[in-house]
Amino acid sequence: MITSKLFHSLLTKDPLDTYEDSEKYTKDWLPKVEKYRQDLQNAIPKDLTVELPKPIDELISEQFNAVDYLYSAKLLSPKEFEITDTPAYKLVEKMSKGELTAVEVFKAFAHRAIIAQQFTNCAMDIFIDEGLKQAEERDACFKENGKLVGPLHGIPISLKEQMNYRNKITHGGYVSMLDHIPEEHGTTNQVLENLGAVFYIRTTQPQTLMHLDSNNNFTGLTKCPFNLLLSSGGSSSGEGAITAFGGSAIGVGSDIGGSIRAPAAYSGSHGFRPTTRRIAGSGGISSGAGQESVPAVLGPLGRSIDDIEYWMKSYINEGKPWELDAWSLPMKWRDVEKPNPKDLTIGVTYDDGLVRVTPPIRRALNEVVEKLIAAGVKVVEFTPPKAKLAFETVNKMYTCDGNYMQRKFLADSGEPLTKLTKWNLNYGDGAKHYTVKENRELNVIRDNLRTEYTKFLVKNKIDFIISPTYSNVAPHSEEVYNWSYTALYNILDFPTLAFQTGVFQDPNVDKWTEEDLKYKFRSDLEKLENENYKPDEFIGAPVGLQLTGRRYFDEEVIAAGKLIVNDILKVDLYKH
Amino acid sequence: MITSKLFHSLLTKDPLDTYEDSEKYTKDWLPKVEKYRQDLQNAIPKDLTVELPKPIDELISEQFNAVDYLYSAKLLSPKEFEITDTPAYKLVEKMSKGELTAVEVFKAFAHRAIIAQQFTNCAMDIFIDEGLKQAEERDACFKENGKLVGPLHGIPISLKEQMNYRNKITHGGYVSMLDHIPEEHGTTNQVLENLGAVFYIRTTQPQTLMHLDSNNNFTGLTKCPFNLLLSSGGSSSGEGAITAFGGSAIGVGSDIGGSIRAPAAYSGSHGFRPTTRRIAGSGGISSGAGQESVPAVLGPLGRSIDDIEYWMKSYINEGKPWELDAWSLPMKWRDVEKPNPKDLTIGVTYDDGLVRVTPPIRRALNEVVEKLIAAGVKVVEFTPPKAKLAFETVNKMYTCDGNYMQRKFLADSGEPLTKLTKWNLNYGDGAKHYTVKENRELNVIRDNLRTEYTKFLVKNKIDFIISPTYSNVAPHSEEVYNWSYTALYNILDFPTLAFQTGVFQDPNVDKWTEEDLKYKFRSDLEKLENENYKPDEFIGAPVGLQLTGRRYFDEEVIAAGKLIVNDILKVDLYKH
Repeated sequence: MITSKLFHSLLTKDPLDTYEDSEKYTKDWLPKVEKYRQDLQNAIPKDLTVELPKPIDELISEQFNAVDYLYSAKLLSPKEFEITDTPAYKLVEKMSKGELTAVEVFKAFAHRAIIAQQFTNCAMDIFIDEGLKQAEERDACFKENGKLVGPLHGIPISLKEQMNYRNKITHGGYVSMLDHIPEEHGTTNQVLENLGAVFYIRTTQPQTLMHLDSNNNFTGLTKCPFNLLLSSGGSSSGEGAITAFGGSAIGVGSDIGGSIRAPAAYSGSHGFRPTTRRIAGSGGISSGAGQESVPAVLGPLGRSIDDIEYWMKSYINEGKPWELDAWSLPMKWRDVEKPNPKDLTIGVTYDDGLVRVTPPIRRALNEVVEKLIAAGVKVVEFTPPKAKLAFETVNKMYTCDGNYMQRKFLADSGEPLTKLTKWNLNYGDGAKHYTVKENRELNVIRDNLRTEYTKFLVKNKIDFIISPTYSNVAPHSEEVYNWSYTALYNILDFPTLAFQTGVFQDPNVDKWTEEDLKYKFRSDLEKLENENYKPDEFIGAPVGLQLTGRRYFDEEVIAAGKLIVNDILKVDLYKH
Repeated sequence: MITSKLFHSLLTKDPLDTYEDSEKYTKDWLPKVEKYRQDLQNAIPKDLTVELPKPIDELISEQFNAVDYLYSAKLLSPKEFEITDTPAYKLVEKMSKGELTAVEVFKAFAHRAIIAQQFTNCAMDIFIDEGLKQAEERDACFKENGKLVGPLHGIPISLKEQMNYRNKITHGGYVSMLDHIPEEHGTTNQVLENLGAVFYIRTTQPQTLMHLDSNNNFTGLTKCPFNLLLSSGGSSSGEGAITAFGGSAIGVGSDIGGSIRAPAAYSGSHGFRPTTRRIAGSGGISSGAGQESVPAVLGPLGRSIDDIEYWMKSYINEGKPWELDAWSLPMKWRDVEKPNPKDLTIGVTYDDGLVRVTPPIRRALNEVVEKLIAAGVKVVEFTPPKAKLAFETVNKMYTCDGNYMQRKFLADSGEPLTKLTKWNLNYGDGAKHYTVKENRELNVIRDNLRTEYTKFLVKNKIDFIISPTYSNVAPHSEEVYNWSYTALYNILDFPTLAFQTGVFQDPNVDKWTEEDLKYKFRSDLEKLENENYKPDEFIGAPVGLQLTGRRYFDEEVIAAGKLIVNDILKVDLYKH
């Protein structure tokens, strides 16, 4: 456990604990929280559960690999495996030919989702009966009209809880929002429903949504399915876990500093943070309403890049979010050919100048580079310019309302603050209220960075950047402090795909070298993060990296992602 | 002259005059201003000037129509008339066939520009020799390669002064910026230069850029070429005057509250405020750097909608501003067919609920509606919902840094404040510094308005909106107070084309009726604006209106604009 000076100094900088009000919380709110938890427990259909091999706490401390066990213990029927290990776009094709029904598809994913919940604690809200009814409606509609409702017909999609869901509590990780029951779906839920998707599970996120981790006062921690000791990441914590475990065909998360990419990378799935304004974000709980210095972006997580592309294209071109939400750009998804590796130049970031990566990340970078070069890709080293300025600026942007809205949402219930909430409330400039003038100065720095990076890439003909999503693999729960690798691409607003490399941490290989141990840390933050890595405590953690392109060239990033993941790395997350 | 209570109360609300520092200004800055004025005077080639029929002050008080005079007195040669009365896209075609040279085109426009300057005082910076040299280079290049430099090859384009110009003073209307000599063009100047445009004149704007008028301490007032008593509008003041007079093929202005549309409408040309982020705004003087609640937008002014379309398409698709400025969207300009009038529904705003329009505007609206209906267009009345909230919110957005940057730029030189600077500094919440939290609340109001308007138009199948650009025709100088008609589409960020209707104010027709005179004013602002209209003082002023479409449907607005202006209203600004 961390007892670093840095952490303590941040914790004690400002008397934020005064937002906690144990008496008010216990009296007015805890009963509601307990009911919420009980409702969640009751919503789990007993017939879909499995018997765990050991009590969950033992599995956690043993670093249990739930994905391995799912297959080795054959927790699903062959038919269920077949369905849930098929990409969504292929399931749609099968349903369009009548080879599968939406109900068959739904039942298989519902079963796998409930098992995911048992191992990883990924659910905030479960409604299997409603999902089944939706699936039945899709089938009835297909039977009647002979055609699908839309391109996501019958696809079981998991949703991060913060997105407004019609007639269901939507709290965004804040106890004080337990009474918030929206009458309408948020825009993205509505678009997906219009396209034929089926909803049945809403997933976990941390208190305040501002951790790359999962802890909250409703459901506690969510775990990495490949190693239950580790965090699934966050803030789309449940989405990382459920998509990596295969409990949904596609998941939807949101990302303001890494919140799609971290859980995808840590948990073992792929996740895409699109450029802003391609996917509608309106209608949901957020402490950042009206904040446009570094807006949150919604995006998909899943086990195939093809599915991510299919989702993006369907959502944009057929969902037309701009008719429901003027923030969204009517910018059609373009069909882009998979590039020829020989035409590609990729910049690779081995170190961002702020926090050194741990041995498994270093190994994955080297292995990926080796394969890229073997495939004919030109690889150059890319050290992000002004990374420190970018990171400091984005941190100020996160907190420049003095964390007013977070504090308000917290203070309204007096709920206990989790460890990382305290950390984050004190980060950046913490409680300092910026003036509009000061905020604008940050925006000017940001715009200059965006243009500087853009010109650099254009001038040097670098098509894409591959970099770590984090200095480490999935961390232990409540021990992820540094956002610098992911948040860089939030302040730049560059589309970024977190992808699995096929590399998993190996305690026998991924050790610090003698040389490593002589390293002089550049900051307390780096020391904190690096000292947290002990090879024996991260066994089998998947290693994800991220692929970045220029602003609004989302299509090119996905096309290159398909080349790299499918063809060059030959990673197939449906095979086990 | 206005002595309204409202105006005085705004003027005295805050002791803003303390930013003036007569001693400092006179000692440190006035000599530089005088040199600047002298340089401008010296830059006018004597051989391009004409003899004015009377001293300019007399022409002004006589409400002289300089456009009429240009033609009746044959101030240009037939060849010069032929060239300067040809749309830019046709000039390019002729140059591509060798039927015209860039030098011929340039000389004709340079001549007409200098005459425009004599009558309207539209220039801030003149450099005919450099323009000629550029034109010669274009011709040499064409001769050598047999093809044009780009789609704007040899087109003389006038530029609002605020846009950074390489190695030339760029002050944006602030005396304190007289020492600002950028080393590089602003992005848009660079894009236009890359496309082959020729530069020779930079045009006037008011102090602070935040008037829909022209007064500044460098050059004073700019005048409407159809009635020299009236203002050319602003803040792209010189662009309105020069394009309406025909002194440039196309002009470039910027618009944060009406600053392209007001000068186009008042002066007698067309002007387009695109949706944000299609035309690059980076590199220029602005008090709003980093302000993104209601960003300024650059856009073209000219005498033909076809030219505006040609400019937009060339700029975006071949200029690729996103490679120079990451703020710009890589969103290609789409080819959109001119719509069939029978398929169109147009909402018409006769009154925005805030300031009643004057008789010439009312007449133009009625005549346009009559012609639209005759052409088969479905016309419905459109009263903008929540116009008051929108106007109050956008005013707060303009001033929510407490006007800090404007004050700083003014205080740095101590220059005298013009009447409308005082008005604008005191408008909205004047000197109140907003916190980030308060600014975000404004953004949420804005986003809700945008979505409400979007959903309303989609639901009611209203394709476009036609509305006044202002409650009046071109006002007397320093007497335009109300921005509500234009600023609505800035806060909504809807693309809007100001277009000429072919209607001109007629003092015998455009009188207040008996009924009008019984009208009970809804506000002091309305009273102030309406009482300013006296039929005999606005003789022959052109009447422009504006055509608005949904956010990012710029292409559709321009296509509909071509239908309405060219085919239905049959307005041809090249014919006189």
